[in-house]
Amino acid sequence: MRPGGAGVIDYSIEAFKMTRMNAAPPAVSMPLPLPLSAKARRSPESPINELIAAKLANPDLINFAAGLVDEASLPVDECRTIAARIFADDAQGRKALQYGTTIGLRPLREELLAHLERLEGRKVGELNLSPDDLIVTSGSQQSLYLIADVLLDPGDIVITANPSYFVFTGALKSLGADVRAVPMDEDGMDVEAVEALLAQLKASGKLSRVKFIYCTSYFDNPTGLSLSGPRRPRLVEIVKKYSTSHRILILEDAAYRELRLDGPVHPSIKSFDPENLYTIIAQTFSKPFAPGIKLGYAAMPRDLLEQVLRQKGSHDFGSSNLCQEIALQAMHDGSYARHLEVLRQQYRAKRDATLAALDQQFSNSARNAQHSALFWTHPAGGLYVWLTLPKHADTSREGRLFETCVKYGVLYVPGAYSFHADSAGRIPNHHMRLCYGQVPPADIVPGIERLAEAIKAELSERS
Amino acid sequence: MRPGGAGVIDYSIEAFKMTRMNAAPPAVSMPLPLPLSAKARRSPESPINELIAAKLANPDLINFAAGLVDEASLPVDECRTIAARIFADDAQGRKALQYGTTIGLRPLREELLAHLERLEGRKVGELNLSPDDLIVTSGSQQSLYLIADVLLDPGDIVITANPSYFVFTGALKSLGADVRAVPMDEDGMDVEAVEALLAQLKASGKLSRVKFIYCTSYFDNPTGLSLSGPRRPRLVEIVKKYSTSHRILILEDAAYRELRLDGPVHPSIKSFDPENLYTIIAQTFSKPFAPGIKLGYAAMPRDLLEQVLRQKGSHDFGSSNLCQEIALQAMHDGSYARHLEVLRQQYRAKRDATLAALDQQFSNSARNAQHSALFWTHPAGGLYVWLTLPKHADTSREGRLFETCVKYGVLYVPGAYSFHADSAGRIPNHHMRLCYGQVPPADIVPGIERLAEAIKAELSERS
Repeated sequence: MRPGGAGVIDYSIEAFKMTRMNAAPPAVSMPLPLPLSAKARRSPESPINELIAAKLANPDLINFAAGLVDEASLPVDECRTIAARIFADDAQGRKALQYGTTIGLRPLREELLAHLERLEGRKVGELNLSPDDLIVTSGSQQSLYLIADVLLDPGDIVITANPSYFVFTGALKSLGADVRAVPMDEDGMDVEAVEALLAQLKASGKLSRVKFIYCTSYFDNPTGLSLSGPRRPRLVEIVKKYSTSHRILILEDAAYRELRLDGPVHPSIKSFDPENLYTIIAQTFSKPFAPGIKLGYAAMPRDLLEQVLRQKGSHDFGSSNLCQEIALQAMHDGSYARHLEVLRQQYRAKRDATLAALDQQFSNSARNAQHSALFWTHPAGGLYVWLTLPKHADTSREGRLFETCVKYGVLYVPGAYSFHADSAGRIPNHHMRLCYGQVPPADIVPGIERLAEAIKAELSERS
Repeated sequence: MRPGGAGVIDYSIEAFKMTRMNAAPPAVSMPLPLPLSAKARRSPESPINELIAAKLANPDLINFAAGLVDEASLPVDECRTIAARIFADDAQGRKALQYGTTIGLRPLREELLAHLERLEGRKVGELNLSPDDLIVTSGSQQSLYLIADVLLDPGDIVITANPSYFVFTGALKSLGADVRAVPMDEDGMDVEAVEALLAQLKASGKLSRVKFIYCTSYFDNPTGLSLSGPRRPRLVEIVKKYSTSHRILILEDAAYRELRLDGPVHPSIKSFDPENLYTIIAQTFSKPFAPGIKLGYAAMPRDLLEQVLRQKGSHDFGSSNLCQEIALQAMHDGSYARHLEVLRQQYRAKRDATLAALDQQFSNSARNAQHSALFWTHPAGGLYVWLTLPKHADTSREGRLFETCVKYGVLYVPGAYSFHADSAGRIPNHHMRLCYGQVPPADIVPGIERLAEAIKAELSERS
């Protein structure tokens, strides 16, 4: 346990911020204001940046906050071999170093389609997909962003689960979306609540503003929970029912899909849209392979892809060709599949250690009655455990518990980041997201101990 | 010379388009419309995609259209060595494969700042720049896009030269910008025309809508011309004069800066803004090193960078960390600088060959009086020669000359793509952009011959 006090490294995020800002020379004069766009004025500062910066600046902090992947298992050997192979051949090396196309390397798109086929256990023909219905992007985040960009005007409605992935929420806010959140439970997003909301929007004449449903269908960020089997076709049925004058789309974020640790294998929501008209599925290389090559991809209706391509043409006209060659080779030579198996073992062990440590600290602590009101999810995959504290706890960034944790050398993501306000503007303030992704195995038990100690100190003081 | 007719490969862009679309299965039913955003509805299809696709699909076509870089001189050896070095060390390899930060790798930003210092011949302190005033992006295109995104609302005014870089024009259109073009001459953008336009906008009460001046200051796309020495400080003076209630910014696109072949070394426009308040400079690794690592960077006022970071956080939260490590090593071990020297020799030879072939075909052809009305630029750097045909010629994509060129196996970019309409909606239709960038040296003379033959056939028929 790391005590606070004098002489201790200042772990606070403010400290890193100060360091960064102080490194720069002072401004010369009071400048005139910048003529910012409405979008810029709507854009919140991303909380994740400061959290990632914190970890990079202080490797000593046990960081359950950043959604980074396991560092020790990153595919260095595989990439060494692949890079050597690409650059061993002059012609191939040159191809990798030249410009590519906006939609992405065709052989890679073919591999990705075959990959989707394997994941679904269905022929792509049954999904009405060809390599030209799939775009390669700079991480799946760019896929999500581009979809939102071609669909949303300020005031348009997006339906999402509560809680949901906060980086995408930031993007939705910047685009001026009216985000309507429905509850979720152990079976994921409450799709009947989606139907009830759509019925209500229809009754109030707002159906024309509904653009898409955003759903993280596998081991989601922040809860680690998945959409249940029966809810998948049902969600497609619901959007079809309410698509009367325009298509209401489903944006399926399947970033964590391949990090399945145990439990059932679900086909995607997309697989229940055999016409390829209502659904987009976004996946990534970041979680199952390596974030450093910064590649994602999305399969979607052809008319939507045409629009997404135009935007990507303006944004960057194509992601790194070299990274795409690496991804292609990794899929082609089997190193992607082999590496994923290694990863799943790592994450399974880390998830188990996290859950066991939480059990150890909280479930068995009958000596601390207030701790008995703690709950947490038991994810069957992905990187996250979602912890629910007693309602009187305050896990917010500004709260004392967060500062206590930082002082003790442990970091979490405040649950409030992931929640959308209810109709009364309320945001729950007593959850935290724990990511075991990049925490070294040996740090998991001491990390949860530090966390428990901080929670104990905070809850005792308040009780 | 390649004759048209039966048995000849169909070089037309329509043919490639058809191939791509036909590969996909047919749509099952007539779908409901997509609920597109206003931005998507404003977004034109990018012409460059089809041109790049054409080249990739048909290596046999002599392609003066695509702005690709010289293929033979891509730094395969350098990247082989660098990749091997990165992945030889486990810790370093893992770092490259992990997530980075939204702003970009700090050591790379430090190198880039030192690089700017060398290019300007001035200390970065004199420019009020620190590594935190510089962001790494997915090509310089993403820098340009993000700047536009945080500044422009529909109807906002951007001032640019006529002609100017058409991919960025597409982005400006998608953002709903009111693009006002001023003429350019051998000394680049006519900055006094910028002042006259600002005075006029001020008189008509529209100055508050003016967000920035876009200026490609070195060997621009499409003309190959540069902004003259005296016009650089003058442009800064002008925006300062008209910045009364908000800052009017200068977005300096310096993508081709380092591909200087001869002629004077100009300091950037940015160097005349020692407070770092009014100017952004965007540069790239694509032209001076390799497009395949897809990296660019931009230095800008700190308050603007804060806004750009928020948007990049939504778009992709950081460009490929692996590519950034490669770029860092290339700058660090000197391979960037060495490679640039090789490139400049290559491009110098290709520019000279292009100009000599044009001379050969057109200047000396007193036998064809109509050809004497052809002019072309003599660029001191970059990748482009801008050809002006007689006014009655039609170089448009839909015109007969374009089809004749495709039939003869040579491709150019129609000048009309790069022009903004004048107040009467007119767009000049008798220019073409020739890029010698990726044309193999041996193809330059036959390529210009094919082009001359097509022009001769077309002009003869019309005369």
